[in-house]
Amino acid sequence: MITPYDDTYFMKKALQEAEAAFEQGEIPVGAVIVVRDRIIARTHNLTELLNDVTAHAEMQAITSASNFLGGKYLNNCTLYVTLEPCQMCAGALYWSQLSRLVYAASDEQRGFKRMGTKLHPKTKVVSGVLADEAAELLKRFFIEKRNLN
Amino acid sequence: MITPYDDTYFMKKALQEAEAAFEQGEIPVGAVIVVRDRIIARTHNLTELLNDVTAHAEMQAITSASNFLGGKYLNNCTLYVTLEPCQMCAGALYWSQLSRLVYAASDEQRGFKRMGTKLHPKTKVVSGVLADEAAELLKRFFIEKRNLN
Repeated sequence: MITPYDDTYFMKKALQEAEAAFEQGEIPVGAVIVVRDRIIARTHNLTELLNDVTAHAEMQAITSASNFLGGKYLNNCTLYVTLEPCQMCAGALYWSQLSRLVYAASDEQRGFKRMGTKLHPKTKVVSGVLADEAAELLKRFFIEKRNLN
Repeated sequence: MITPYDDTYFMKKALQEAEAAFEQGEIPVGAVIVVRDRIIARTHNLTELLNDVTAHAEMQAITSASNFLGGKYLNNCTLYVTLEPCQMCAGALYWSQLSRLVYAASDEQRGFKRMGTKLHPKTKVVSGVLADEAAELLKRFFIEKRNLN
């Protein structure tokens, strides 16, 4: 069976969110949360606009999805995010009991793997989906930012 | 010099927030953020009311203090919280570059120390201030909750 709804499809949606962040001068990271092939949250990083270190894409996605679901556990959900979650976001995912985490680019410096942050034991992890596209966007952002300063 | 503004004074304020959480059926954890002896944020856990795992006292305190300061770094701030922060909250504190963290009770199971979460290298940590009072409140909450179910 051919289905249009695979991990690449949803990661493209997360990348569109990352591009929207880029346009707004935010570090370009985007996320979507999916339940049974349906997107229930679309968010991107807003730390600059909101002046708030907690406004990462994943944090807003968790809040938004919980709001949609009317419950705080995301145990039937998949989170797609364009960059490996940090300690804070992985810690939030731990509490959410997320079913599945799919991320694109790795964050070798501050990603949850390097930092040793524990996800919930139920959470399955897939990495590397559209990693080059996501990393390229981040790289372009930091090059442009450096040239402006 | 005798000053009324010591760590015990501010932890009492955080405990008052924890008591307010208790009254509302929330796990009783409270927090305040202080700059030069002035409280700029008072918050407590709201995960039940908001149906949101990210609504820990510390997360809301960070957002609230950043809003007050008009900037996202808390490098002149002290956070007082009645329970040792979890991975998520410690991860948020890492990004905030908090100057000083003072917590009351330890969380041997899910606290950031046991979980190995890294704070910002600039953050000084003090623990155990009014620890018995904070732990007693949590214990009473869980006993009452168990008896209701």
